[in-house]
Amino acid sequence: MAENGMERKPWRFDFNPKLRDAASRNIRSTVDLLRSNIDRSDARPVIPLGHGDPSSFPSFRTTAVAEAAVVSAVRSGDYNCYGGSRNLVPSRRAVAEYLSRDLPYQLTPDDVFLTMGCLHAIETVISVLARPGANILLPRPYYPFYEVRAQFSGVEVRYFDLLPDRGWEIDLDAVEALADDRTAGMVIINPGNPTGSVLSYGHLEKVAETARKLGIMIIADEVYGHLVFGNNPFVPMGVFGSVVPVLTIGSISKRWAVPGWRLGWIAACDPDGILKDAQIVKYINEYLSITSEPVTFIQGAIPEIIKNTTQDFFDKMISLLRQMGSMCYDRVQEMGCFHCRHKAEGSMFMLVELDLSRLQDITDDVDFCCKLAKEESLIILPGSTVGLPNWLRITFAVEPSSLEDGLLRLKAFCRRHAKGGK
Amino acid sequence: MAENGMERKPWRFDFNPKLRDAASRNIRSTVDLLRSNIDRSDARPVIPLGHGDPSSFPSFRTTAVAEAAVVSAVRSGDYNCYGGSRNLVPSRRAVAEYLSRDLPYQLTPDDVFLTMGCLHAIETVISVLARPGANILLPRPYYPFYEVRAQFSGVEVRYFDLLPDRGWEIDLDAVEALADDRTAGMVIINPGNPTGSVLSYGHLEKVAETARKLGIMIIADEVYGHLVFGNNPFVPMGVFGSVVPVLTIGSISKRWAVPGWRLGWIAACDPDGILKDAQIVKYINEYLSITSEPVTFIQGAIPEIIKNTTQDFFDKMISLLRQMGSMCYDRVQEMGCFHCRHKAEGSMFMLVELDLSRLQDITDDVDFCCKLAKEESLIILPGSTVGLPNWLRITFAVEPSSLEDGLLRLKAFCRRHAKGGK
Ligand SMILES: Cc1ncc(COP(=O)(O)O)c(C=O)c1O
Ligand SMILES: Cc1ncc(COP(=O)(O)O)c(C=O)c1O
Repeated sequence: MAENGMERKPWRFDFNPKLRDAASRNIRSTVDLLRSNIDRSDARPVIPLGHGDPSSFPSFRTTAVAEAAVVSAVRSGDYNCYGGSRNLVPSRRAVAEYLSRDLPYQLTPDDVFLTMGCLHAIETVISVLARPGANILLPRPYYPFYEVRAQFSGVEVRYFDLLPDRGWEIDLDAVEALADDRTAGMVIINPGNPTGSVLSYGHLEKVAETARKLGIMIIADEVYGHLVFGNNPFVPMGVFGSVVPVLTIGSISKRWAVPGWRLGWIAACDPDGILKDAQIVKYINEYLSITSEPVTFIQGAIPEIIKNTTQDFFDKMISLLRQMGSMCYDRVQEMGCFHCRHKAEGSMFMLVELDLSRLQDITDDVDFCCKLAKEESLIILPGSTVGLPNWLRITFAVEPSSLEDGLLRLKAFCRRHAKGGK
Repeated sequence: MAENGMERKPWRFDFNPKLRDAASRNIRSTVDLLRSNIDRSDARPVIPLGHGDPSSFPSFRTTAVAEAAVVSAVRSGDYNCYGGSRNLVPSRRAVAEYLSRDLPYQLTPDDVFLTMGCLHAIETVISVLARPGANILLPRPYYPFYEVRAQFSGVEVRYFDLLPDRGWEIDLDAVEALADDRTAGMVIINPGNPTGSVLSYGHLEKVAETARKLGIMIIADEVYGHLVFGNNPFVPMGVFGSVVPVLTIGSISKRWAVPGWRLGWIAACDPDGILKDAQIVKYINEYLSITSEPVTFIQGAIPEIIKNTTQDFFDKMISLLRQMGSMCYDRVQEMGCFHCRHKAEGSMFMLVELDLSRLQDITDDVDFCCKLAKEESLIILPGSTVGLPNWLRITFAVEPSSLEDGLLRLKAFCRRHAKGGK
């Protein structure tokens, strides 16, 4: 530019420091990091037990009726347009009716907001509740995305523990000790990620009463809703909507095995209109008006997806998860270097504690998982990613043959690294 | 709950005040408001010349090859999964190649980020540039979403004018006067919304040189890219990427008439790597890792959509827009209560100034548009929504027969409200 006689000033832009390290705390980044440890000369396929997305395995292929509903919505040409400020009403109604099946009251389309998957629902709820000085109570072991979004929104995070010796129930004394005048709400994830637990009706009722006493709402992440295969049935938190206002969030990502379709929701389970009176519902609308909305033809397909999916499909997935969860538990227990306290009862995950005293040359969970990736082309999530150092989170929702193979590799790895082992 | 002996505390949550009035400043809210003025007893169909989405009109139906690409991606079952932290590489490559056709250098897949439409691209860019104290320079008349997002991110907005007497060129003296050490960048929208203008190569070059001198980047909103039908060809700002770093944002929403598909992009047009060195590219990645990503099967379809769309389809749309734009200009000019300075040369909009001196019982643009909605079931956007009080923004991208009808209604309205008119 010298020929223009212009002097070049230093560039003045800079990035937003609130985004620093945002990505690195996601599960996805940990998985990417582990993948980079894989030995390229290992001819065996990589076995991904690190993240919860079985959708690309043949056994977990979504139902044909869901695909058909989307195809027909595309072909109609009726849904190429913007969805409009309040989404498509029949689609909201379909989700309202779907969720109301399990509630003692009826949700209306006005209680439901469609989002781009449950991630967008989390983003929305946290952004709406982020008044200055707000804090939020989160369960630990955790799903890291909540903290990432809270930090970005300037919301302080306070963790309460889930108690492994009580089936990962919530430490309600801790909740009471943490809450104060600036507490916007508490998050529960049920069925649990990363815990694989399913909370009982009785415990959920206590949670609701505690929240009511504290004057805080509940954000109920039910993205794994209905994916239960143990003794406890799935009880949506919204059942206690008249005890405490509940924002239920979910998506079709897990139950229909289509996370790539990005269709989720927020439902105000609030029969007494407390969230409405406090303008939370209005501000959810405001927030959604300044972000992108779900793809219109997927909104358009959702009534058909819900109506046409047969119990068969759901049953098959549950029985597969039950079978995989049991296999995982049984095999891992025999390996001798883990404490397995719980068989998973829901979601797609099992948490196991590393017994480092039985292992040589392994310093911690991250070291374990890095070496495992390198030596066995097997990806398992180190517990420290979810707030539980020296545990592992194993995803068992993969093709059965892959899980078998993965567990064999894990066994070989443990044997190789066992103290006094060969 | 009295029977539980619990005292009900006041609910402690409250909404984020930064969201106050966010929705109401969107074009969509204005359109919704106008619609609420419509006389339900008017049997005529509502004619929507208020917002830019022709996709539901038969003449603007997207190309069959685009629909086929999406259908085949859905049917393959290969794209039900998450897209992954950096989207699908072939999809980024396809967009990189598509954009590179008009650039003097090649973009690589690493220069391109896929977003949920151009709205998500705007959100991302502003969020990334929102360091404390940052300001951003925006064109006026404006596209309101920029200010809404900037306010939410705590970025100060400073407007420079577009000059109606110079074909809506940018007032570069104003830009120089506004920029300071905290200026992150300036936005240009070309082809223009709401202006309908297409900036010349020579003017864009001056813009680039000004930005370079000031040390600020350019955010080039090219969502209407290639939709030009006047004398100036479409010149992407990225052509000047070695003068000044450019973040080009766009989507398939307009050129393919599929805004409901929510597929857009950010391209770092930055052959000298300045944005990379300043970590802006890294932080775009960070931000995208904490928001939802575009639907995986639409990512998967994008290479086919780009490859298979024929020039035919584009040509037909351009010729339709040219024809509609001319019709609109000619008819509106004759109505006697507007100043029409420019025929639209691009995008889908024409701006006309109200001549209030020729109208009785109309106080301003909002009054005009409300009465128009009520009396004629015709929606036109009041200019004050885009920063230009007492102007109107007319969308001419609708079915030709609807535009004819709409213009007749507008003429009848003007005649009825003309001073001394009947
Ligand atoms: C607890 C939890 N919440 C939310 C999500 C995000 O769900 P979605 O894919 O619908 O955005 C996940 C995904 O794994 C999850 O595990
Ligand atoms: C100038 C401008 N930028 C961005 C957008 C948003 O585009 P998209 O629908 O791809 O999100 C629009 C939509 O009308 C627009 O006019």
